[in-house]
Amino acid sequence: MTEVPFSRVAVLGVGLLGGSVGMALKRADRARSIIGVGRGHENLETARKRGIVDEWTTDPAGGVRGADLVVLASPVGTLEKLAETIGPHLQSGCRVTDVGSVKGGLVSRIETCMPKDVRYLGSHPIAGGSDSGATAARADLFDGAPVVLTPTAKTGEADLQFMETFWRDLGARPVIMDPEEHDRVLSAVSHLPHMVAYALAASVSDRPDWAGFIGRGFLDTTRIASSPPEVWTDIFRLNRSNLLDSLKRFEMEIGRIRERLAVDDEVALRHLLSEAKETRDRFGAG
Amino acid sequence: MTEVPFSRVAVLGVGLLGGSVGMALKRADRARSIIGVGRGHENLETARKRGIVDEWTTDPAGGVRGADLVVLASPVGTLEKLAETIGPHLQSGCRVTDVGSVKGGLVSRIETCMPKDVRYLGSHPIAGGSDSGATAARADLFDGAPVVLTPTAKTGEADLQFMETFWRDLGARPVIMDPEEHDRVLSAVSHLPHMVAYALAASVSDRPDWAGFIGRGFLDTTRIASSPPEVWTDIFRLNRSNLLDSLKRFEMEIGRIRERLAVDDEVALRHLLSEAKETRDRFGAG
Repeated sequence: MTEVPFSRVAVLGVGLLGGSVGMALKRADRARSIIGVGRGHENLETARKRGIVDEWTTDPAGGVRGADLVVLASPVGTLEKLAETIGPHLQSGCRVTDVGSVKGGLVSRIETCMPKDVRYLGSHPIAGGSDSGATAARADLFDGAPVVLTPTAKTGEADLQFMETFWRDLGARPVIMDPEEHDRVLSAVSHLPHMVAYALAASVSDRPDWAGFIGRGFLDTTRIASSPPEVWTDIFRLNRSNLLDSLKRFEMEIGRIRERLAVDDEVALRHLLSEAKETRDRFGAG
Repeated sequence: MTEVPFSRVAVLGVGLLGGSVGMALKRADRARSIIGVGRGHENLETARKRGIVDEWTTDPAGGVRGADLVVLASPVGTLEKLAETIGPHLQSGCRVTDVGSVKGGLVSRIETCMPKDVRYLGSHPIAGGSDSGATAARADLFDGAPVVLTPTAKTGEADLQFMETFWRDLGARPVIMDPEEHDRVLSAVSHLPHMVAYALAASVSDRPDWAGFIGRGFLDTTRIASSPPEVWTDIFRLNRSNLLDSLKRFEMEIGRIRERLAVDDEVALRHLLSEAKETRDRFGAG
C-alpha cells in the first residue's frame, strides 16, 4: 500500500542518516514539506540548499509543531533528552521514529516521553558510511539496506505496518525485532567491531614512525576507528551490558588462538583460522 | 643506475606477488626470460598465457638452473625448505631474494642454505590484495609500495644497493631494516590485525542467522579474515614471539576500554576513543 504524503515532516538532526531520510522521502513523493532541526546553521543551510529540507530551525519544540511525522536522527546519546523536550509539543496523531543504533531500554524511555495520542516506533537502518553531515546525505542510502523496527507491547499492529511501508517506500528492507534482541545482535556485529578497531589503533599510538609500514590490512581493520568518539562513547554506554558480553566472547576467541600459538600447535591453529575464514566468507565479500 | 637485464629469472611461486614481480620486471625491461616454478599446472599455464613467464616447470632444482636471479615467492612457511632444495643447483653469482612477510631468523636460515658465491637478500614488499594466483598479478602492484630490505652482517654494501635499484625499477620504495626489527614492526601493523580479524569473525561463528544485520563496519574489520589460513598459520608461527607481544599490547588496550566502560566512566572512555581515532587518522584515509 502506498500512503498519502505527510503534510509536514520534522527531521531532527540533518546528518548522513537524517538528511538521507529527507531525500528519500522526497524521492518517494511522501512529504509535502520537510523542516530540518539542528544546531549548526551551516549544516542546516547546506541541507536547505541541497533541497533536503524546505526550511530549518534550531528550536526542536518549534520545529515539531504541526508535524505529522517526526524523525529523530541526532546522535543516539541525545535522543532521550530530545524526546523529553519535544513531547509536549507534538500534535495529536503524530508519528515519531528514530534512527538510533541502540534500542533496548532507550525505546521504552522515549516511549514514556510521548503523549498518549502520538505513535512512536523505533527504527535502526543499518546503513551509513564514513562521511557525515548534510553534504553526505543521499536519496539512495537506504536502498536494499536492512532497517530494524523494534515494536514494544504498546505498539499497535497497524502502526507497525505503517512504519514498514514507510521504510519500504524509502528503499529499505524492514526487519521486526524485539528491542533487547536488537541490542544483543548489534553489540556483536557492530559495537564490538568498533571497540576492537579503536583498541587496535590505540595499540600503535606511540609509533607514528611505523606509518610507512601500514598496509591494506591495518587500514581496513581499523577504518571504523575514525568514527566520532562522542557518538561511539554514547553507543557503548547505552549498550554496555551486551557489549561487555560480546567482548567477553571475542576475548575468549582471541585467547583460544593465543593459546594454540603459544604452544605452537600448528594443526589446531590452522583449524581455528579456517573456521573463522568460513564464517567471514559466509557473511559476504564486501 | 639502471642495470642490464637479467638473462634468466626464476620465479618460485607464481601467485599475486611472484606473478607481479614477473610482470613488473618485463615492464621495466629487466628480464630477457622468466621461468615460473610451481605446483599447480593450471596456474602456471595461466601465467604463461598472460605473458608473466615464458616457460614453466614444477621442478625447483631444474627451474633455478642457469638463473642469474631467483625470486622466492611461495608461502613463507615453505621458504626454508625451498632454499635447501635449490641451494646446490644455484649458479655462481646468482642473486636470490624472497617476498616473505616474516624475516627475522628465517633470513639467516635461508642464508645458510646458499652457496658461498650466491648473494641472498631478504625483501618484503608491503603490497597485496584479497585476490590471489597468477590471474591477480599486476605489473603496477609495487608502484609506490614500501619494500623492506633486510640485510644481515653477511650482506655486502654493493649487493644491498643492487637490490635497492632492482626494487626501484619495479616501482617500489626500498626501506632498509634489521630483520628482527622488521618482524617486531610487522607483528603489530599486519600480523596482529589478521589475528584480531580472525577472532572477530570467530566470535559470531555460531550465528549465521545474523547475516542480515552485518554492516560495513563488521565487513571492513574482518575482511582479512578471508586470507588463506595455511599462509597465516605459518606467518603467526614464524613470528610467534613478537606477535604474542603485540597481542599483549592490544589486549591491554582493549582491557583499558573495557574497564572504563564497566564503570561507566564517560569522560575517560571518550578520551580513549579520541586518542585511538587520532592515531588512525594519522595513518591515512584508505
